[in-house]
Amino acid sequence: MEGASPSARAGRVSRRGLLGTLGGGAVGAVLGGVAVGLSRGSEAGAEAVSSAAPANAVVEFMGEHQAGIVTPAQDRMHVAAFDVTTSSLDELIGLMKDFSSAIGYMTRGLPIGGSAGAGGDDLLAPPEDTGEAVGLTAGHLTVTVGFGRSLFVDADGKDRFGLKAKLPEGLIELPHFPGDQLEEARSGGDLVVQACADDPQVAVHAIRNLSRIAFGRASVRWSQIGFGRTASTSKAQATPRNLFGFKDGTANVKAEDTSVVDEHVWISGLEGESAWANGGSFMVARRIRMTIETWDRQNLGEQQLVVGRTKASGAPLSGGEEFTEPDFAKKGANGPLIDTNSHVALSHPTRHGGAQMLRRGYNYTDGTDGLGRLDAGLFFIAFVVDPRTHYVPIQNLISKQDLMQEYVRHTGSGLFVIPPGVNEAGGYLGKRLLEG
Amino acid sequence: MEGASPSARAGRVSRRGLLGTLGGGAVGAVLGGVAVGLSRGSEAGAEAVSSAAPANAVVEFMGEHQAGIVTPAQDRMHVAAFDVTTSSLDELIGLMKDFSSAIGYMTRGLPIGGSAGAGGDDLLAPPEDTGEAVGLTAGHLTVTVGFGRSLFVDADGKDRFGLKAKLPEGLIELPHFPGDQLEEARSGGDLVVQACADDPQVAVHAIRNLSRIAFGRASVRWSQIGFGRTASTSKAQATPRNLFGFKDGTANVKAEDTSVVDEHVWISGLEGESAWANGGSFMVARRIRMTIETWDRQNLGEQQLVVGRTKASGAPLSGGEEFTEPDFAKKGANGPLIDTNSHVALSHPTRHGGAQMLRRGYNYTDGTDGLGRLDAGLFFIAFVVDPRTHYVPIQNLISKQDLMQEYVRHTGSGLFVIPPGVNEAGGYLGKRLLEG
Repeated sequence: MEGASPSARAGRVSRRGLLGTLGGGAVGAVLGGVAVGLSRGSEAGAEAVSSAAPANAVVEFMGEHQAGIVTPAQDRMHVAAFDVTTSSLDELIGLMKDFSSAIGYMTRGLPIGGSAGAGGDDLLAPPEDTGEAVGLTAGHLTVTVGFGRSLFVDADGKDRFGLKAKLPEGLIELPHFPGDQLEEARSGGDLVVQACADDPQVAVHAIRNLSRIAFGRASVRWSQIGFGRTASTSKAQATPRNLFGFKDGTANVKAEDTSVVDEHVWISGLEGESAWANGGSFMVARRIRMTIETWDRQNLGEQQLVVGRTKASGAPLSGGEEFTEPDFAKKGANGPLIDTNSHVALSHPTRHGGAQMLRRGYNYTDGTDGLGRLDAGLFFIAFVVDPRTHYVPIQNLISKQDLMQEYVRHTGSGLFVIPPGVNEAGGYLGKRLLEG
Repeated sequence: MEGASPSARAGRVSRRGLLGTLGGGAVGAVLGGVAVGLSRGSEAGAEAVSSAAPANAVVEFMGEHQAGIVTPAQDRMHVAAFDVTTSSLDELIGLMKDFSSAIGYMTRGLPIGGSAGAGGDDLLAPPEDTGEAVGLTAGHLTVTVGFGRSLFVDADGKDRFGLKAKLPEGLIELPHFPGDQLEEARSGGDLVVQACADDPQVAVHAIRNLSRIAFGRASVRWSQIGFGRTASTSKAQATPRNLFGFKDGTANVKAEDTSVVDEHVWISGLEGESAWANGGSFMVARRIRMTIETWDRQNLGEQQLVVGRTKASGAPLSGGEEFTEPDFAKKGANGPLIDTNSHVALSHPTRHGGAQMLRRGYNYTDGTDGLGRLDAGLFFIAFVVDPRTHYVPIQNLISKQDLMQEYVRHTGSGLFVIPPGVNEAGGYLGKRLLEG
């Protein structure tokens, strides 16, 4: 009545409408063939068959690699790290199965368990899904799960779950970098879950439900919301801007360059006990607070000097346009046009044996600190084949010399190995590690 | 090159493209006729005339009332409260002029000052605009400004700026409500700025730049990001869901009901020293943390009992569909179908002399508390004609009796008077108060 549409926003297909698409595929496989729809609410039943999913709002969960890495970067993010509280490997396996099942539903825009999501019809049971995403599309949701070093060995070197021998060598303790001001409560974690979507409510719904599902087995250690992507991972995407107001990620690894991705992102060729990680990647997460009040008072020339690019177009200061290769040798009246300590000069692959990262970070703003300054910056995420070659040396150089260091402060840090995707019936995230 | 479009996302008109629309209207008026475009960057100059603004991404700033109240609720929000640090009325007036000018630009999708926004071309000056919204549309940005009681009188009752006699009677100190757990650092403020937009980066850009502009005159006291609207303010909008998973705001005041808006939202009929506030409103802001972990463990029947509506459709438990009026007298086997202490029963206008609020709140998630629980809930915003009749009695009843109180905790609070809009050349927000 009165022009309101009960549950779907204008022009969108509701989650309930998506029910008709279920049956095989990821969720069916994850559930091992359990029929879905038994607990559908009455409304869902009526609508289930009448409409189909808009293909472009669903990112496939199943695959050789996990989604959310080379997937075109969605606009919003919610990341959470968990401490595993159980000491039982069976319970950890159960958690990964439950996560995988829930992710299978949510990434299809379905309420967990396949019910109407806003409750199903069992008045005597807590709803399987918390319901706040009912009526929204799948929003290109991807949920990417990884494991921290502390899942394999505790602080005393103890083998927590019999997984120590399977620890990939690349899953190091990150060193202290000059200028690091890491907060314990924003760092580390046994598990990480990165949820990205077009709609923040869809991403928050995913993290909230996974933390609920984890109850008694794992608890949230830290979480972070990001509101604007700061990297493109596809050539079809324009380069976004970070909170310095500059384009960020112009030289990022793009999904279309599959040979670059194969070389710099996906783990391969591991043998023996850590071979389970082939097809996976490493995720570096760094919460980088920007002192934007200081930055905003710098003149444009100083800002551009620090970055090494123009603010308007993103072109290197050596000339051309955004995607022109920087010419670090090109000199002006006062020396190199691109300062040797600028961000672009120090982070360029030519300085690091050709190493490239697939960056997938987000702008964040977390209210205000006690001094009336916005707590804002970049939640840096990078996926790399090996952090020993593709992150540590680069961050070491940057943190020592980069002019930009004056305007940033690393306050959180995490390193995780991302297992390969689920690509078999009955599979679940981490199966090759946990059962292999 | 390589498929990337330099500054505009696919299908959007860039901020630089919008420059051609400038000249008269809000910004010209606010600036008192100063020609705009003097500091345009070179790129902007080239593109300025070639494209026009998509009308549907711009919400007009000028008007009898401020935008952002009856404007169809945008999906994202950033609100900040400021402490005014200057004691000079002239500086306060200057601040309101600067705010108004900047808002005029930003709500048109333009960089502040009309430059290219990503820097302009003056290398020796800090850019007038921080730049992170360049390439984005106006995103239906609205920026709504209000004044707290503490701007008129300080804690000792002292008249800070000679405005004490103009304090509207409705701008009370909110009483302590049962169960309030207010945090000083999340409450109060001399000024409030509510920025709402389709794109969170646009809303954050607005707050960030206004806090920069305020430097030396006012500083941010608290700020809050909201990611999902929890109310519709237009009949064209579907009812969204809050983090309890229920539809929220079904019975909200809608802009189309102009007589309801006139009666319950806009201040009118004030005489004498506070007549300046006519055409304005009062904004109640409450940060309501939800104990979602507890809620999620309740069965569906309990959840519905608390709300008084079904979770799936939002229909009252007395029957019908979402927009059916609740029938509080209707009885089932165990008494009234809608519990007399349910949220819908206690907040219904029939319990409060017909008083209605225009709600415009947002879901929020602010990371995690020290106990591994998501710090999440509702940032409640309501616009009302008088908080003495339209908020205090309702919240008093709810906080004493509502079954929902078990699952919520008010942690922040603010009450502000919203001055009328700017509807004259040379006008600015608050002019009638500050110069009247």
